[in-house]
Amino acid sequence: MRKNKISFTVRYGETDQMGVVYHGNYAQYLELGRLSWLKDLDVSYKKMEETGVILPVISLQINFKKSALYDDTITVVTKLKKKPSVKIEFDYEIYNENDELLVTANTVLAFLNKETKRPIKCPDYVLKKIDDYYDF
Amino acid sequence: MRKNKISFTVRYGETDQMGVVYHGNYAQYLELGRLSWLKDLDVSYKKMEETGVILPVISLQINFKKSALYDDTITVVTKLKKKPSVKIEFDYEIYNENDELLVTANTVLAFLNKETKRPIKCPDYVLKKIDDYYDF
Amino acid sequence: MRKNKISFTVRYGETDQMGVVYHGNYAQYLELGRLSWLKDLDVSYKKMEETGVILPVISLQINFKKSALYDDTITVVTKLKKKPSVKIEFDYEIYNENDELLVTANTVLAFLNKETKRPIKCPDYVLKKIDDYYDF
Amino acid sequence: MRKNKISFTVRYGETDQMGVVYHGNYAQYLELGRLSWLKDLDVSYKKMEETGVILPVISLQINFKKSALYDDTITVVTKLKKKPSVKIEFDYEIYNENDELLVTANTVLAFLNKETKRPIKCPDYVLKKIDDYYDF
Repeated sequence: MRKNKISFTVRYGETDQMGVVYHGNYAQYLELGRLSWLKDLDVSYKKMEETGVILPVISLQINFKKSALYDDTITVVTKLKKKPSVKIEFDYEIYNENDELLVTANTVLAFLNKETKRPIKCPDYVLKKIDDYYDF
Repeated sequence: MRKNKISFTVRYGETDQMGVVYHGNYAQYLELGRLSWLKDLDVSYKKMEETGVILPVISLQINFKKSALYDDTITVVTKLKKKPSVKIEFDYEIYNENDELLVTANTVLAFLNKETKRPIKCPDYVLKKIDDYYDF
Repeated sequence: MRKNKISFTVRYGETDQMGVVYHGNYAQYLELGRLSWLKDLDVSYKKMEETGVILPVISLQINFKKSALYDDTITVVTKLKKKPSVKIEFDYEIYNENDELLVTANTVLAFLNKETKRPIKCPDYVLKKIDDYYDF
Repeated sequence: MRKNKISFTVRYGETDQMGVVYHGNYAQYLELGRLSWLKDLDVSYKKMEETGVILPVISLQINFKKSALYDDTITVVTKLKKKPSVKIEFDYEIYNENDELLVTANTVLAFLNKETKRPIKCPDYVLKKIDDYYDF
């Protein structure tokens, strides 16, 4: 099963007065993970939006096990959970540079027509690329 | 069962280019809800931290049903799920001014000693205040 | 000279590991100030955008004198600097509940056509309202 | 004159409903620039804080010329303005991948003792490293 890994460094402004990354900021980290997963599949989310398909998050689940600190280099591992239909689901793990597991997470996103905001199926060109790499 | 309600207006900077509130920003909205719940119980989270108890989020679950827009007045309804021990769990609902349900959510937080970062029991003065208002 | 005052409470997620409000978050506070100033003039920025006029910030200047802390109630005082043309300029002061001056700031915003992104003059209905209250 | 350049990609969550990066988020971009400048000098801001020196921003000035868009790769160019004393001042320019100038900015930061919050002089080991590379 193909996974995507993306690493980046925690920004100062992402911490809070507990001295660790503010828990709400992990939503952005997961987004960096799944957009990197899409790029890895050679799909640009930016182009998808420009062609009228948006992909809002409809469910977000995060379990916080250990804190990330300012200046930590963290790695988001993103895995597609199953073949997408009108929804696409991802599992995530976030690690620090000592390979400690900080966070496990899951998001479900819905493919929507940008104008009507109605659900649509995952675009064929995305499905085709997924079929090339996965066998569900 | 006592609930807390807090209302506020969506800020411009909380939107994203989908034209709605960025999904990651709801973590802050839930926090406003539970801190208001605590104040309603006459407990100041600020003082709790100053006396050495921190309360990080260890699990966050959000279901997004409908979008909040810039300048919407939204209401977060916060309910304690059960009597707290070393953890405290809340359910939330967020509504817009037309009483449309935007979000349901759940968070679990852990009481920790600020210095050692070790789990501790919910402070007695908090438990007492909860006992006065709830019967679990 | 008419000023607008708006008060609100510092959110936990707005702090950083210095234990004070992250300096970048003051941009949002100033925005709350000037949108409140507009409402006070009976102008809704939301409606202005819907009618095709956007008002991006083109210059931002903030001087930080004292820190705001989590749970502080702070007050943003917003003043129009001069009669607007294709630009509108505001001065701000932010105070805490002890009336200590935390921040002085200035922003310049430009009236733009939302579609063409070209500069336009301040809408007449806004100018008229300003004329009713100010004499420049 | 030595400058630091750091490039990164605009995150989705950094946009607002104008479809461009929210102006307040540039404060974080400037911070990435000057922390990269410090690293380039072989100074870790994290270690500086751990040894009791903090460096809050006391003045922030940003001129916005052109917008950054989601997924743009932008480059922050950071230059030390003059030899630091109790303060340190930086000039910045931000470019997109077409070398268009998006932003010019300036920040002044103050060296403070972390405990007393009183001004102190720029640490000697930092001054020495600056002397090695600059002649003011």
